[in-house]
Amino acid sequence: DVTLINVFEVPQGREEAAITAWEAARDFLRQEPGYISTELHRSLSPDARFRLINVAKWQSPAAFEAAIGRMQAAEVFPRIEGLVSTPALYSVIRAD
Amino acid sequence: DVTLINVFEVPQGREEAAITAWEAARDFLRQEPGYISTELHRSLSPDARFRLINVAKWQSPAAFEAAIGRMQAAEVFPRIEGLVSTPALYSVIRAD
Repeated sequence: DVTLINVFEVPQGREEAAITAWEAARDFLRQEPGYISTELHRSLSPDARFRLINVAKWQSPAAFEAAIGRMQAAEVFPRIEGLVSTPALYSVIRAD
Repeated sequence: DVTLINVFEVPQGREEAAITAWEAARDFLRQEPGYISTELHRSLSPDARFRLINVAKWQSPAAFEAAIGRMQAAEVFPRIEGLVSTPALYSVIRAD
């Protein structure tokens, strides 16, 4: 497996719009081959630098990249002004 | 439970030092009351913006804050020049 972590910097007042867009992406991606699970995290503090962080599991990097390609082509959700997302694939190197 | 996500920006060539420091912190924190688990993630791509991301579970915000206070007082690991860590507590708002 591989872990997708997407770190969001959310402009003031755009949190609900960001969550709605995330839900549209989830609804698309959960149908895609290789999808395993996802958890969207929101900071307890409203002024955290990274207000939303998504942690998802995929069977392989290739499955994830293909699914993202199809999602972008399908234009599943609108661009949100000022929202910065930094997605990257990770592996767990220490677990306890 | 509550989730601690610590997002690390790691300067070129400081990755091993950052992991060693993280291990020292883990060894201290795993003894603390309220600690549940932790997973350190490393990006598949070496030039990801956030090279290391830790995702840990704690029983409560108070347990986590108290443990961090004790760790800082104990000066468990050296400061690493240029390493930026952004820890924050999160709750899961969407799971799938």
